[in-house]
Amino acid sequence: MSSSLFRLFVEPGLSSGQTIEISREQQHYLLNVLRMKKGSSLLVFNGRDGEWRAEVLPVSRKKCILEVIEQTRKQRADGAAPLPDLHYLFAPIKRGRLDYMVQKATELGVSHIQPVVTDYTNVGRVKMARMEANIIEAAEQCGILRLPSLGEPISLDKVLDGWDMGRKIIFCDEAAALSSPLEALGSLQRHEKLAVLIGPEGGFSPEESARLRGREGVLAISLGPRIMRADTAAVAALSLVNACLGDWV
Amino acid sequence: MSSSLFRLFVEPGLSSGQTIEISREQQHYLLNVLRMKKGSSLLVFNGRDGEWRAEVLPVSRKKCILEVIEQTRKQRADGAAPLPDLHYLFAPIKRGRLDYMVQKATELGVSHIQPVVTDYTNVGRVKMARMEANIIEAAEQCGILRLPSLGEPISLDKVLDGWDMGRKIIFCDEAAALSSPLEALGSLQRHEKLAVLIGPEGGFSPEESARLRGREGVLAISLGPRIMRADTAAVAALSLVNACLGDWV
Repeated sequence: MSSSLFRLFVEPGLSSGQTIEISREQQHYLLNVLRMKKGSSLLVFNGRDGEWRAEVLPVSRKKCILEVIEQTRKQRADGAAPLPDLHYLFAPIKRGRLDYMVQKATELGVSHIQPVVTDYTNVGRVKMARMEANIIEAAEQCGILRLPSLGEPISLDKVLDGWDMGRKIIFCDEAAALSSPLEALGSLQRHEKLAVLIGPEGGFSPEESARLRGREGVLAISLGPRIMRADTAAVAALSLVNACLGDWV
Repeated sequence: MSSSLFRLFVEPGLSSGQTIEISREQQHYLLNVLRMKKGSSLLVFNGRDGEWRAEVLPVSRKKCILEVIEQTRKQRADGAAPLPDLHYLFAPIKRGRLDYMVQKATELGVSHIQPVVTDYTNVGRVKMARMEANIIEAAEQCGILRLPSLGEPISLDKVLDGWDMGRKIIFCDEAAALSSPLEALGSLQRHEKLAVLIGPEGGFSPEESARLRGREGVLAISLGPRIMRADTAAVAALSLVNACLGDWV
């Protein structure tokens, strides 16, 4: 999976011999920042057609297109474990940490990112374009082929009202008695449909906690005796889920 | 452990009835940012004497000292699990992510933070004062009483030459064959002396990997099929270690 070639997320379909257009910002980055020339190689992926080696075809000093040369990885390798079907639900947090949180969730292989507005959520409008950009940046850097989908922010009540009961919710509860998260996760099946729900700084309100705890298909886990920031808890919980139930074998 | 009182790290020893001086920046923050008045309560800790409730004593419009009132938590609660004896060794990374990495390691309860210069480390001088400030900020926010110690940067070779062989090294190896990190960690004992070693972006050099792999007391673990940034890998590995071997029970 390692490659020293630059990876670029592109929109168009990918097949051998095709030429594709890329955004003005991407052209600028390749030509002026990375100083690529005619024939310079890079990797491209679109989330659907695997990963391909492509070459730069300048069309002017400031513009280029890409020629798709050969596939380097299939979208899903034969015999590979299924990708995690893992939704990541979180209360939006402040900007820098939100960027980080979305990047980390992408690196950790979640399939869907869902901002959830809770009673103690203390953030105004969530910038969807910025979250999209963070997902793409993380995917480019981290070698994944599938990008998580991104949902519009929705209230926790609405999320729960419309919930697919076949998908278990793993809920990181600061108020939970200290107990082993690995033992708790051991009660779930590998490769079942899962969601990890992380509250805002300050946690869930008593009403939210009660609603979550009283619900079927919700597993409350504890993440140790130290209070963690929401973005730390997110990486911790997703790592434990990957290691116990996901594709970290 | 939860408290809505502001927590402040201070240098002086703490005991009941004592008044303590705090830095000019801290005075400014309490009086002008938090708008505290005479008698306003906050929590103070120094990493040695537990946590205390203190009250603000203004000495002028812009200056204040604190009066230490009563202990709210002992440095170590009777019967509490021993704090993790967990060193965190990492190759320094770029500034924003370095801040994050140090904060996260603090939240995850490591006892010592050690920057290690590896073959592929691509960062100039490491700002120790900035790392200290990040440790303190994380400790204030996250309710811990013990601050990790911080070592001066040192080369990986020197670290290994002077290593305490009683302390196992858990080494996150991107080149490791995919295998369960939980099973691997299960080969170690709970509460033994541990260190987690995280390489730079780009990983360890072949020589470093060979040296690490050939060494007694080094456990290489895999963190799944996706390439993660060094700071993500750090939180993931420390979380798994806490959950398997540390104080996440």
